[in-house]
Amino acid sequence: MILTVTLNTALDITYRVPTLRPHASHRVTEVTERPGGKGLNVARVLAALGHEVTVTGFAGGVTGEVVREGLGGVRGVADALVPVAGTTRRTVAVVDERTGDTTQLNEPGPAVAPTEWDAFQDVYADLLAGASAVALCGSLPPGVPVGAYAGLVRTARAAGVPVLLDTSGEPLRRGVAARPDLIKPNAEELAELTGSHEPLRATQAARRRGARSVVASLGAEGLLAVTPEGRWRAAPHARVRGNPTGAGDSAVAGLLSGLVENLPWPDRLARAVALSAAAVPAPVAGEFDRAAYEELLGRGVAVTAESDAA
Amino acid sequence: MILTVTLNTALDITYRVPTLRPHASHRVTEVTERPGGKGLNVARVLAALGHEVTVTGFAGGVTGEVVREGLGGVRGVADALVPVAGTTRRTVAVVDERTGDTTQLNEPGPAVAPTEWDAFQDVYADLLAGASAVALCGSLPPGVPVGAYAGLVRTARAAGVPVLLDTSGEPLRRGVAARPDLIKPNAEELAELTGSHEPLRATQAARRRGARSVVASLGAEGLLAVTPEGRWRAAPHARVRGNPTGAGDSAVAGLLSGLVENLPWPDRLARAVALSAAAVPAPVAGEFDRAAYEELLGRGVAVTAESDAA
Repeated sequence: MILTVTLNTALDITYRVPTLRPHASHRVTEVTERPGGKGLNVARVLAALGHEVTVTGFAGGVTGEVVREGLGGVRGVADALVPVAGTTRRTVAVVDERTGDTTQLNEPGPAVAPTEWDAFQDVYADLLAGASAVALCGSLPPGVPVGAYAGLVRTARAAGVPVLLDTSGEPLRRGVAARPDLIKPNAEELAELTGSHEPLRATQAARRRGARSVVASLGAEGLLAVTPEGRWRAAPHARVRGNPTGAGDSAVAGLLSGLVENLPWPDRLARAVALSAAAVPAPVAGEFDRAAYEELLGRGVAVTAESDAA
Repeated sequence: MILTVTLNTALDITYRVPTLRPHASHRVTEVTERPGGKGLNVARVLAALGHEVTVTGFAGGVTGEVVREGLGGVRGVADALVPVAGTTRRTVAVVDERTGDTTQLNEPGPAVAPTEWDAFQDVYADLLAGASAVALCGSLPPGVPVGAYAGLVRTARAAGVPVLLDTSGEPLRRGVAARPDLIKPNAEELAELTGSHEPLRATQAARRRGARSVVASLGAEGLLAVTPEGRWRAAPHARVRGNPTGAGDSAVAGLLSGLVENLPWPDRLARAVALSAAAVPAPVAGEFDRAAYEELLGRGVAVTAESDAA
């Protein structure tokens, strides 16, 4: 089983409006909602690839109930979310039908009490016993200590479970110092972590800060991987048009999937790039276009070794 | 008991963001939510004035539960909402902390089935038996026939209960033809109904279409009333600064309150203007500043008879 952790799960709401105009009143023409948060999106992609996945993190209140109901309908995903007294946050994505652009509003999340955080850590430690890998994903809700991911990385390492960390800011900085097996920052997160805007230099700096391997996601330029086994760049041959929301979560799923199958790095990266690009035509995070994925995996991704000269 | 009808109740959510920028991602700094929909706001103001109020309309799904829980905490307001299988809509007001401006996103509401609409009409007829007045407020959810308010006006008239209608567009046009005792359109609704942008002419035209009395709310210019007993203009002596959301609902509450107390028209209008102006400094619809209200009522509102010459 692969474990994904989403401490700040969300009910992702999408509103379509004819045109978004600040300070005006809008009739929403279409409302959709689904379970959200990075780790839940990663889990859906892993399940679609045929992996058994367990999700944990926090869920509470009426939105937490809706999230859990929604998860109940996803085959291959087991719900091990821990209850909280507070209410799971909503995120609202407002899609302008004229331009296709999205404006995002993210609630901060429930205040997590120290006893709830303790209860989660116990559940997490128990779940690790059956896990082949774990992914720690996304932002921290209020009340969870900023060093939370560092502690969760250490627990996973002590249990001998490979751990991937996908977060940003201070939680990423502290988590990296606890020596996770893999981080997957985007260019902005990597620059914030290391102070360098030059991707290869920044990726190497992130390894020196503690990450065993770093796979940086560089948007249309694909992935840059710096690992103890070597360095690679991986990118699709052609750009894919659509909505990039969820491409990062799909890449994480591809890396985890390749990891538990012990694929060589170039194959892991090809899978991650193919999944990431196949997420772009899909309307929502956590989904991908299977035909596009299989075509990309066949011959649509270039993986090239990077020289040591940098 | 005063009855208010809100067919399209709402969970009103307010988000504060530092600055709203279309196509950007925002962390919401503060989230508040409360029961909403015009008739619920009117009911809260009436209850604060000491009236016994019953609210009806539809509520369903998890948001409907939250609305009913919120109403349970309001003293003087009895909940007679009718369950629906669909989910009560949300409205999201995004407040830009820099400018104070609000961007409004309104979900359409649940699809109401014919059997649910029938069930509501039975409940409504029963409630009218104990009502001294009824207010029909706001938009119609999908599935409710566009002539719904016309039918509800006729039922109230047959029961001998004075009926106030506060809606817009085609439901207003049809409702007016059923001869309600009072309508309270704003300038835009009045122009849409009558085709005239000249308030006195439009107000008279609205009476010819069937409304016994018309009280038009003209923003900072106050109220213009055309009734069988005479014509008046009523406005505060000084402008009040703040958030005009809910001022119209407070005016409706003032008019209903004056109606059931059989106040002369100038006193009803003074109460409506004072409540409306006292709603402006309040942060949310359905609330008003009591000290401001009492001061305005004392000597802050000018009510002048309008000549017949128009």
